[in-house]
Amino acid sequence: MNELFPSKFLKALENLLGKERLLKEKEDLFSYSYDSSSLIRLPSAVALPERKEEVIEILRLAQEYKVPIVPRGAGTATTGSPLAHKGGLVICFSRMDRILEFNEEERIVRVEPGVLNGELKKFLKKYGFFYPPDPSSYEFSTIGGNVATGAGGPRGLKYGTTKDYVLALEVVLPGGKVLKTGPSTLKCVVPYNLTSLFVGSEGTLGVFTEIVLKVIPLPQKRILFVSAHEREEEPLEIITEILRKKLTPACAEFIDKTTILALSKSKGSLPIFENKNFSSLLYLELDGEGEILEKEKVLIERFYKDLGISFEKAEDESDIENLWEIRRTISPSLKVLGKKRFAEDVVVPRRFMKDLLFKIRKLEKDWGLYICCFGHAGDGNFHVNILFDSENEESAIKVRENVLKEVIELSGTISGEHGIGYIKRGFVNWELSPLQIEIMKKLKKVFDPEGILNPQVKIPD
Amino acid sequence: MNELFPSKFLKALENLLGKERLLKEKEDLFSYSYDSSSLIRLPSAVALPERKEEVIEILRLAQEYKVPIVPRGAGTATTGSPLAHKGGLVICFSRMDRILEFNEEERIVRVEPGVLNGELKKFLKKYGFFYPPDPSSYEFSTIGGNVATGAGGPRGLKYGTTKDYVLALEVVLPGGKVLKTGPSTLKCVVPYNLTSLFVGSEGTLGVFTEIVLKVIPLPQKRILFVSAHEREEEPLEIITEILRKKLTPACAEFIDKTTILALSKSKGSLPIFENKNFSSLLYLELDGEGEILEKEKVLIERFYKDLGISFEKAEDESDIENLWEIRRTISPSLKVLGKKRFAEDVVVPRRFMKDLLFKIRKLEKDWGLYICCFGHAGDGNFHVNILFDSENEESAIKVRENVLKEVIELSGTISGEHGIGYIKRGFVNWELSPLQIEIMKKLKKVFDPEGILNPQVKIPD
Repeated sequence: MNELFPSKFLKALENLLGKERLLKEKEDLFSYSYDSSSLIRLPSAVALPERKEEVIEILRLAQEYKVPIVPRGAGTATTGSPLAHKGGLVICFSRMDRILEFNEEERIVRVEPGVLNGELKKFLKKYGFFYPPDPSSYEFSTIGGNVATGAGGPRGLKYGTTKDYVLALEVVLPGGKVLKTGPSTLKCVVPYNLTSLFVGSEGTLGVFTEIVLKVIPLPQKRILFVSAHEREEEPLEIITEILRKKLTPACAEFIDKTTILALSKSKGSLPIFENKNFSSLLYLELDGEGEILEKEKVLIERFYKDLGISFEKAEDESDIENLWEIRRTISPSLKVLGKKRFAEDVVVPRRFMKDLLFKIRKLEKDWGLYICCFGHAGDGNFHVNILFDSENEESAIKVRENVLKEVIELSGTISGEHGIGYIKRGFVNWELSPLQIEIMKKLKKVFDPEGILNPQVKIPD
Repeated sequence: MNELFPSKFLKALENLLGKERLLKEKEDLFSYSYDSSSLIRLPSAVALPERKEEVIEILRLAQEYKVPIVPRGAGTATTGSPLAHKGGLVICFSRMDRILEFNEEERIVRVEPGVLNGELKKFLKKYGFFYPPDPSSYEFSTIGGNVATGAGGPRGLKYGTTKDYVLALEVVLPGGKVLKTGPSTLKCVVPYNLTSLFVGSEGTLGVFTEIVLKVIPLPQKRILFVSAHEREEEPLEIITEILRKKLTPACAEFIDKTTILALSKSKGSLPIFENKNFSSLLYLELDGEGEILEKEKVLIERFYKDLGISFEKAEDESDIENLWEIRRTISPSLKVLGKKRFAEDVVVPRRFMKDLLFKIRKLEKDWGLYICCFGHAGDGNFHVNILFDSENEESAIKVRENVLKEVIELSGTISGEHGIGYIKRGFVNWELSPLQIEIMKKLKKVFDPEGILNPQVKIPD
């Protein structure tokens, strides 16, 4: 037994949860030892609470015994944030997955943290409503995890990210105190904005037990354009032009040359533009109501034709989904270019998107490594993936440092939606000032004075 | 000279700002002694900085000499938040009113805190862009003040409030340290969300020197419906029905019976529905593009006709503004019903709007006082104004307490957009838990450990 994990604590948990909801055996713990980063950290135990009262008692006991606590959703994080880096207790929310309330008149939904984003979308669709944030993991990731990371997704361009939809939270603090961040009204300026402080806090400030979300009417129709470009940077210019025309597409996703290489290699050939020569793709999705959509569609068609750009267009839901399928398979395809990877999630102001792309191509050439640069270009948010094998790990580390430095020089940020977790903590002080970091540490202390919540995550030492 | 205001501090300020930008004479100070509450508090001195370096030096000196600091925009607050309750130095931002950067491609604007909301709107309109938050004071109030209170307005229903548009802040802390809350990118989850923590903090955590705002394309066209209702609560039912139809109007403003009485008395007669008998009005504004607007217009027309509701419709900008003028004159008209007033700014979930209205009518009858209940009903946000004269002040105090208690019982909040300031501090612990208040105090200490920033504002003792 780990000294951080006294047997009295374990016994108290067992009394609370019963043996079947307190996992202690190595083979059971293994399932909770990884996320979508490459890290593996075996927790000391895993709790599977079903009710908020249990969460309260767990946090009371954890404070009493000074045991590190790691809240966990579905483990789709890419940064090691739901892992027990110092050992300790993982609290997994898979059994707290109820939709507690949906009120059409208020346009709000109240959920437990373990509800899957995709399940919530499916539920709301029946009523003609919509929860826009759509991380690639949306079918598997939980709302609690989405709130903890401040998840985004392609639809961020038009609809914003998780922070724009969280109205109120119920949070349990170390020691077991329950904090309601505010009422579920659409407006409230009585307390400081505690709700937003928890969004993106990566489980370091408190543990969510209830989440109130704003929802919006489901757009009536979607139209997807996928275009092929000989000049790799052309899609980035097109996004700018389209925004200048005062259009706001739902999504504007860029797929770069190296990512296309990965997709082609992994599939044999790309199931789109098969007889064309192109070095990048742009996914542009419009949504809304029939007539305006029609007008916007004509505008885009004309724009593409004037520029001589090849494109496919889908208006039928299943055609649209088939085209998105190519975009969604990027992540698993990348391994054909290297067994290992650094997956960055950087954002630059839109006017610097091309500079970043050119820099990445130069790094690729200089270091002889594949570097993919795809993602939510409408927001300036790129998933930069550096592929490598063990023998060139040193080079990959250098390239990664170069990419992050370039992003910061271009007034950007090293994370737009994945968060810092464990794996990016070493870079936080490249972006943030000593004052920002000092304030983060003090804020953490306000909520978690003993430092038992997700230690070694988000905040640098 | 006040002991809180040592002469050495004054001398240092004079060296910094020169005599013409450091006001000390009583007749000059008087202009900075009031806001839109009924409070008067003469400051010890007023500083008029023109550059951020001056603000930094003022906050450095203030910390050194332990002098209370009160940041002030245009003084349109309704709560006493920009007043020097303990004496001290008011920093007025009227001379820091530059629009520093507008980037169409990024859809962001960077401003100094003293820019007027109305000036920013005018500036953006030239480029076809739009900053939606529109407090009634928008022609006179500053962006800095709007951010400090988290200002809303009628357009909140469709477009949200100030918090939804602030991307990043540059803040000076007591002692003179400069905190940038984050980059100006559209997404960033590296630090905790410090930006949102400052929105609505009412000058108690730091002093803004730069504000980066997201802006959106200007809607092409507006259509305003004003309808008259015999049954006072009917507009509240209609709002619900319209939201159920999945329409989201830009604004849905309710004017109740007692407010109509005030308007009629003050103007002689109301310049609308002159031969009709009605007890409430609903302002419903749609905006967007031609064809969909046309469809929504037809839908509303048909809906109103089916219900036999009288309405006027305006599609021309000047007709629309003329109709809004009636709404905008509510506040000055109310004095015909009482020399004094308590102006509340409560929010309830939409489903409880009618309960609140009925309760208010009952209180009006029981206590023999006029109580107006108008405002942003689309958000559940009502401006409840209790009118009284000196002789019935005791009753008014009781009525006010009753209203606030009822709001809290209906799961609402005592402030949706005006903030707490000085005058509502006594009610904060009715709404917030001891834990919420304890956390607010600790958060305040993180940024302002000596408590020199806006003391006696927002946080109860």
